[in-house]
Amino acid sequence: MVEMYEESAEGIQFIHAVPSGKYHQLLPTVFFYHGFTSSKEIYSHFGYTLAKAGFRVITPDAPMHGARLEPDEGVLLANFWNILQGNVDELASLKDLFVSRGLADPQRLGVGGVSMGGMTAMAALVRFPWVKVTANLMGSGYFSSLSGHLFPAFGGNTGLTREQTDRKITRLLEWDVSEHLNVVGSKPLLVWHGQQDDVVPFDESWRLKQALEQQGLTENLTFLSEAEAKHKVSAKAVWQTTDFFKNHL
Amino acid sequence: MVEMYEESAEGIQFIHAVPSGKYHQLLPTVFFYHGFTSSKEIYSHFGYTLAKAGFRVITPDAPMHGARLEPDEGVLLANFWNILQGNVDELASLKDLFVSRGLADPQRLGVGGVSMGGMTAMAALVRFPWVKVTANLMGSGYFSSLSGHLFPAFGGNTGLTREQTDRKITRLLEWDVSEHLNVVGSKPLLVWHGQQDDVVPFDESWRLKQALEQQGLTENLTFLSEAEAKHKVSAKAVWQTTDFFKNHL
Repeated sequence: MVEMYEESAEGIQFIHAVPSGKYHQLLPTVFFYHGFTSSKEIYSHFGYTLAKAGFRVITPDAPMHGARLEPDEGVLLANFWNILQGNVDELASLKDLFVSRGLADPQRLGVGGVSMGGMTAMAALVRFPWVKVTANLMGSGYFSSLSGHLFPAFGGNTGLTREQTDRKITRLLEWDVSEHLNVVGSKPLLVWHGQQDDVVPFDESWRLKQALEQQGLTENLTFLSEAEAKHKVSAKAVWQTTDFFKNHL
Repeated sequence: MVEMYEESAEGIQFIHAVPSGKYHQLLPTVFFYHGFTSSKEIYSHFGYTLAKAGFRVITPDAPMHGARLEPDEGVLLANFWNILQGNVDELASLKDLFVSRGLADPQRLGVGGVSMGGMTAMAALVRFPWVKVTANLMGSGYFSSLSGHLFPAFGGNTGLTREQTDRKITRLLEWDVSEHLNVVGSKPLLVWHGQQDDVVPFDESWRLKQALEQQGLTENLTFLSEAEAKHKVSAKAVWQTTDFFKNHL
């Protein structure tokens, strides 16, 4: 049996999933992030499957999502990259909290996510030395290039230049995978991406795979794709992700 | 806190979600069905949100899905309509089981589902007088017309005629909503559909709404749609569905 709790800390609401009766034990822990306009509930099934496999799982609401939803869609759209950077900052707080409470094993910490959550996981992998295992589903770590065309917060009727918006996400841009391939290749990483993805292009993941291959850094890479999959995690991918954490964390 | 159990009965595996400590109590109960090629895990977040709202929730694997997955995609595709009919038959068994165990309140039984699961819910509403509340997300109850073009099991290289395949799903075709509008309009029904749905057309739900309007049968209908949504349940729709069951079951 899995126990699922709605909790909040540091102003962040999250679902906290644990194997039955193990709430107070030190456990290997996975932080799992939802995508843009989604919520902690929608991907709480990863909390269920991963807790069933023995992990403590924290699925947080991103800034401006879920319990703290920004009702204005325009504001939400203009903040995609800020939200992503915010997720990474908040992950640092959540990790400290669960480790300091003696609940999360600091030697066995994983991060995963879907779409914007997969991007969060990639940024965390680059930024935090404590990340042991990472799963990136339908995301990307190429923040510099991607921020130019996926939900750009500049141009159009925003009245902002690219330079102005880049300044707000300076730190995120520093975590771009292209500058950190050695780190990315040094730890177990799962990349899953549907080849027909019409939101975050499959090519984002293919490009990472090729870059790691060119540097001889694929030893820790598990690369999975489905020929017919669009921007939607398949039933198979849920199992593959769960198995990946079981095998590596 | 919500407790989530993986269980099986009558050869059907399901996730069983209950509010903390209430496993053995008589509770209003929702049976919630996943879509084609999906699994009980993917939509187990409805188990979480609905159990959090006080319900017992059973999310079963459909025939040829999840724990009893048919590995050959061609066979799976050729059996879409059989699987749907099978879901409805199995629902009868599951309902009897949970009522006879004294766990499901026979006066407060709901059925819901997504895509093929929404179709299952519509068929159940027509077939079973015990269904009190129904939620159909991105599904359809127009089985006769839809079976001609959505995953048809006849024509092409199947070697089967429409008559041959229709014979296998005779009962399902009898539950087509077009012949049972009075029943459909007699109980609380939520219909949610994304207007950009590229799998099950939005027009399926619009057509039902119009048919009910023409007969003056919309008193119990809650019709919700999102202009930009494709074949994917939004975070908002999860809350709306949960609230719908809270208000009517």
